[in-house]
Amino acid sequence: MQSPTINILKIGGKLIADEKSLLTVLKKFHQLDGPKILVHGGGNYTSQLCKQLDIPIQMHEGRRITDQATLDVATMVYAGLVNKKIVSLLQALGCNALGLSGADGNVMKAHKRSVGTIDYGFAGDIDQIDGAKISQLIQLGFTPVFCALTHDQKGQLLNTNADTIAAMLAQAMTPYYQTQLWYCFEKQGVLAVPEDDESVLPQLNFTTFKDLQRSGIIFGGMIPKLDNAFQALAAKVAKVTVCGPYSFIQQKGTTLSL
Amino acid sequence: MQSPTINILKIGGKLIADEKSLLTVLKKFHQLDGPKILVHGGGNYTSQLCKQLDIPIQMHEGRRITDQATLDVATMVYAGLVNKKIVSLLQALGCNALGLSGADGNVMKAHKRSVGTIDYGFAGDIDQIDGAKISQLIQLGFTPVFCALTHDQKGQLLNTNADTIAAMLAQAMTPYYQTQLWYCFEKQGVLAVPEDDESVLPQLNFTTFKDLQRSGIIFGGMIPKLDNAFQALAAKVAKVTVCGPYSFIQQKGTTLSL
Repeated sequence: MQSPTINILKIGGKLIADEKSLLTVLKKFHQLDGPKILVHGGGNYTSQLCKQLDIPIQMHEGRRITDQATLDVATMVYAGLVNKKIVSLLQALGCNALGLSGADGNVMKAHKRSVGTIDYGFAGDIDQIDGAKISQLIQLGFTPVFCALTHDQKGQLLNTNADTIAAMLAQAMTPYYQTQLWYCFEKQGVLAVPEDDESVLPQLNFTTFKDLQRSGIIFGGMIPKLDNAFQALAAKVAKVTVCGPYSFIQQKGTTLSL
Repeated sequence: MQSPTINILKIGGKLIADEKSLLTVLKKFHQLDGPKILVHGGGNYTSQLCKQLDIPIQMHEGRRITDQATLDVATMVYAGLVNKKIVSLLQALGCNALGLSGADGNVMKAHKRSVGTIDYGFAGDIDQIDGAKISQLIQLGFTPVFCALTHDQKGQLLNTNADTIAAMLAQAMTPYYQTQLWYCFEKQGVLAVPEDDESVLPQLNFTTFKDLQRSGIIFGGMIPKLDNAFQALAAKVAKVTVCGPYSFIQQKGTTLSL
């Protein structure tokens, strides 16, 4: 018997900050048939609140360096403000959303990233996601909504990249479901011409991705996002699509293949 | 057949801010046999963060007036900072804590308090708590940890008194469990002499409570707390105790009777 399909949608920080796009995406998400999971970042609000509280923002190659004060802010923004806003909006649509961090129910175990040339502080690298426990929550009728926090099982919360969480979560659900992963951000997909928002590639395979990376057409934050996405595809996730709010509602965007 | 016993522990804002007392209480909570639920406030951190962000703190008779900016701060502190701190500490003890607001899983439905002489803003009065759904989470092995937020099912989060949540939650669990409710705060129980921390009453019945209230020995925030507690007792909650961190670890404090 074929496994039922699950949709896992990751929405990014800039999209979350745009109320209209957020609602558009949440409405479509709710309309998708069958079980589903949402994963969200919240980066923009974190930087805003750090500024208001005079906490210096430290970044290295697009990744945040998380000291204790920054972790507290991230915990407030991700698990508090953004997670509960999304949960209450989904509830208003009739979707029985259940907001979670990876510490809740011990579903995402991680360790503090070891210090190399850069000390990323309280940044977490995921060791294991408990797909069985998450399936049980889905069977009770809940739609899990994950923020980008994990824990080390020793009382330490860890700031964890939301794209990575989405990819590893999709992999963790493959024993139970045929898994479809959507990366939704402010562009409508992977662009063939960076300045042209209309130049969305309908398909992208791994070889072309590496070619476009070498030629500088795919650059910046898109590279780790696609690295995560292709890893998920290699690990038996059935379908991975990079999309924006408008391509998501049409179930389009850039579909990846190995 | 007798129902199994559930312990519901409410911990207050000042206790949460004292790391040592918090850990003491969480350790004892974890050691209690059988299913359990924790409910927490977070008031002190909310006021601190409001000050840092230049948001005016408005109170009326000990209750917070919650405008949009204050609600955002409360959401960050209750559902974010405090809830996830408690969840990760309990996880480190081996307790499979699952942090929730009343919006998560639609388990606590409320409405915005109607405007009388005072407009409390986004303050919620609870209509219904879904004890059946919460029981299902407990049966999966989770220990729910509730922060003091509910929602109106129309996308609005509502700031809700944690003492009231604990009392109504205890009532909502009575069809499934023999319910014991603990109100744990910074004193070790209800005091016979307000200035004497040693003067803890081992027992307090409703008539004596009303006498002590009239004579001014019980005053301030203790009055609504005890009103909630006696209401729970009247609504078939098996046992209600007002305690502090040290009386809680001895399972003592002030036990209420009708």
